[in-house]
Amino acid sequence: MKPLKLRRVAIDTYKENVVFLHRDCALYRSEGFQALNKIEVRAEDAVESVIAVLNVVDDERIATPGELGLSEQAFAQLNRAEGTAVYVNHATPPQSLAFVREKISGGHLGYDEILAITRDIAANRYSKIEITAFLVACAVTGLEREEIVSLTRAMVASGERLDWGEALVVDKHCIGGIPGNRTSLLITPIVAAHGLLMPKTSSRAITSPAGSADTMEVFARVELEIDRLREIVKHERACLSWGGTARLAPVDDILISVERPLGMDSPGQMIASILSKKVAAGASHLLIDIPVGPTAKVKKRSEAMQLRKLFEYAGDLLGLHLEVMITDGKQPIGKGIGPVLEARDVMLVLENDPLAPMDLKEKSLQLAGRILEFDADVRGGQGYFVARDILESGRALDKFESIMNAQGASPKSYTSGSLTQDIVAPASGTIAAIDNLQVARIARLAGAPMDKGAGIDLYKKLGDHVRKSEPIYCIYSEFNADFEFARQAAELDNGYRIDSNES
Amino acid sequence: MKPLKLRRVAIDTYKENVVFLHRDCALYRSEGFQALNKIEVRAEDAVESVIAVLNVVDDERIATPGELGLSEQAFAQLNRAEGTAVYVNHATPPQSLAFVREKISGGHLGYDEILAITRDIAANRYSKIEITAFLVACAVTGLEREEIVSLTRAMVASGERLDWGEALVVDKHCIGGIPGNRTSLLITPIVAAHGLLMPKTSSRAITSPAGSADTMEVFARVELEIDRLREIVKHERACLSWGGTARLAPVDDILISVERPLGMDSPGQMIASILSKKVAAGASHLLIDIPVGPTAKVKKRSEAMQLRKLFEYAGDLLGLHLEVMITDGKQPIGKGIGPVLEARDVMLVLENDPLAPMDLKEKSLQLAGRILEFDADVRGGQGYFVARDILESGRALDKFESIMNAQGASPKSYTSGSLTQDIVAPASGTIAAIDNLQVARIARLAGAPMDKGAGIDLYKKLGDHVRKSEPIYCIYSEFNADFEFARQAAELDNGYRIDSNES
Repeated sequence: MKPLKLRRVAIDTYKENVVFLHRDCALYRSEGFQALNKIEVRAEDAVESVIAVLNVVDDERIATPGELGLSEQAFAQLNRAEGTAVYVNHATPPQSLAFVREKISGGHLGYDEILAITRDIAANRYSKIEITAFLVACAVTGLEREEIVSLTRAMVASGERLDWGEALVVDKHCIGGIPGNRTSLLITPIVAAHGLLMPKTSSRAITSPAGSADTMEVFARVELEIDRLREIVKHERACLSWGGTARLAPVDDILISVERPLGMDSPGQMIASILSKKVAAGASHLLIDIPVGPTAKVKKRSEAMQLRKLFEYAGDLLGLHLEVMITDGKQPIGKGIGPVLEARDVMLVLENDPLAPMDLKEKSLQLAGRILEFDADVRGGQGYFVARDILESGRALDKFESIMNAQGASPKSYTSGSLTQDIVAPASGTIAAIDNLQVARIARLAGAPMDKGAGIDLYKKLGDHVRKSEPIYCIYSEFNADFEFARQAAELDNGYRIDSNES
Repeated sequence: MKPLKLRRVAIDTYKENVVFLHRDCALYRSEGFQALNKIEVRAEDAVESVIAVLNVVDDERIATPGELGLSEQAFAQLNRAEGTAVYVNHATPPQSLAFVREKISGGHLGYDEILAITRDIAANRYSKIEITAFLVACAVTGLEREEIVSLTRAMVASGERLDWGEALVVDKHCIGGIPGNRTSLLITPIVAAHGLLMPKTSSRAITSPAGSADTMEVFARVELEIDRLREIVKHERACLSWGGTARLAPVDDILISVERPLGMDSPGQMIASILSKKVAAGASHLLIDIPVGPTAKVKKRSEAMQLRKLFEYAGDLLGLHLEVMITDGKQPIGKGIGPVLEARDVMLVLENDPLAPMDLKEKSLQLAGRILEFDADVRGGQGYFVARDILESGRALDKFESIMNAQGASPKSYTSGSLTQDIVAPASGTIAAIDNLQVARIARLAGAPMDKGAGIDLYKKLGDHVRKSEPIYCIYSEFNADFEFARQAAELDNGYRIDSNES
């Protein structure tokens, strides 16, 4: 068989290896390859091969009939120079696909089977179609508790695992869905000021107006090399960084890239996703925050309790000391929604400013208190008071500034958006409900989190009284188009329900 | 928002619309698009838009920061010249995805819901991920009988429906899995010679060594324009063409493109796939052939009976007169496997040659007889004898030649492969089993169906006696590499079980 000449095709096909063959390529014709077929590509001097999905091209600027193009990820994986002679073959489907089909037929999978699947996914041997089949089969048949633990372990095994060399490494995670709610930026300095080790790595927003990493970036750099991270944690007992630089449970990221566009969010996969990241990040003690409310991810207390049991069951088997707090998710936490506005709230709380949003402060102290009680020296029930003392004495602010300085100044300085519009109450009355989803949607339309100064600043919260035409919140944008989108959305549905006082 | 300049990116992403934005494209950065996000693309003068999945590129030869590239299918769908100003937006997910999620949660779908899904799929609004989610959810939860009928109807509605202007339009379909088995090429001329209307459109092989269209192509052109097809059918009462030129149930093709790489083959989807094509092709009376055998698609008679009930149920609701024959699928039918070798068998039968494979002739007469009995004038039980008379009198051969001439000569003339190798019996005895799957695999490795002369010619069938070292079949190839692959495969497992005579 004649070899083809390797070529890099600079297309980021996102977690899916793609091979490009020209329609007139002799091999394409003679081998009877079909579009979406998986093809094995091997350099002549290599043992290792790359599996990729076939796309046919009709443009010699992308690949000539004598060339074989590889998408960026696949090219990097093959790790050969352009022009290298490469050979192709029909790829044998990954053996672990048999387990996916078993799951489709309603079977249960053991650890070894799930590990075989995640290994093949990590090695980019699965197409998006195959990954989707696995995820949907899991979602439809449901994951047994044992399967959740197996999936968690397998995802941890797919990447690096940080070891901080201490027995007590604390962490927290909120299952999300509540706008604002930037408790991590307060809890971490409080806990670290007390002396506990809290290497907090956060995600950027995926579907929300800001993630902790987005907001922290207003204060400092968050994309830190893993060695630099270790140094900072060693000196500061904490960090507030983006988790993407370490290769923690990378299979989780691949699975999420498929779950997200499908809007799938099954409890089993959520738990495995959260716990795999935390175990890989080296946590020994973990506090999970489950907000409950009509427009939160978890709508009912009974549902939250079920989720808690699953978390506890999995945590025990994984050797993780895990506690769950079920919190109030009826409305956003804090006033600001969007990176800059949330950062302002965080700073007001740290500075003990009388204008600081009290709900954000209280919730952060409650959670920090529970984490402090992971310390054997803190008496049960006293954590909250220890936390409050650390915050109100200014020690939390000092610690936050040390962490900020250690991580280094953010590459840009950010201010709130210059385009602003107050949204006013259509009638007098009492704020009876705030729709987390609608408020988050408007903040995103305004430009958050990409435009850090964009978002919403809430003037009114549940139970507040308003007069007709009194502002209930303000929209901030940096760009006109976004501003218009957000204003239109707020006009159609401002996310607030106001009960008239007469009723 | 500034427009981008439209550009065609000549990549065939196969049934998935892809949009290419350069990583430095201002819109990409400001809109917060993410890889795999779905984006709506609209030309400035257009109402209609195209939905496509985002791929990010780093090569200005594919798309510059000011350009928006569309893959071939998406470019054709937008139907605008390169350079046209286009605007982009976050695409709202197709509303019918809510029904896919309902199916994932274990719900049942009604016709309107399934129709909404197939409409969106036909309009290329689904990504491969979303299509997979739908298919896997259906496979895991199973399709209720009503859902199978709804899916069939919805797939028919997705494309054209041929109308032949007659009340009795007959067709046949074999669910496949048996090598050789080229009954359609015999049944069609027999039935048409009798005067029934049989516009037979067939598929090319997907996973088998030949489809009816591949074999017919040895004799005549099979890719016929729909208008030409109508003319031929009008004059000849029949055709033997490839079904791909008419837009019959196009959603079925899209679903198959995802099912195939997953190796999924659930009964519900198979029935909907077959019946949608036949209803769209205008059949009023349909005979389904279900071969049963240990290495056939259907292993047991009880399974075949279940499938028959499902076919009958769906046929009745679809207003199709449908009959099912359960046939012997223990071994290949005929001697040749691969287009040229099968074509030879067909011609031997039509010419009443004493060397013609009797099993192929008998099975074809049985099936043709059942179809002839769809004619009110043919007495029950007499169809077989009418068919035999038509065949043995030479009228079937005449009709076949008329159809051949009407369709036009094949662009090439084909002969059997010049590389041949006899495979011999390792011991004396009786042929006790032939593995359909292994025999098909060897024929494919030899080059079938792409190389029409490649395949296998069987000398021995079940029950035949062989002496040690006596040839049991011959491999034909056109190319050395294929020849070697096929020989190696046959050496490891020739697909035959021979029971020694002593036992």
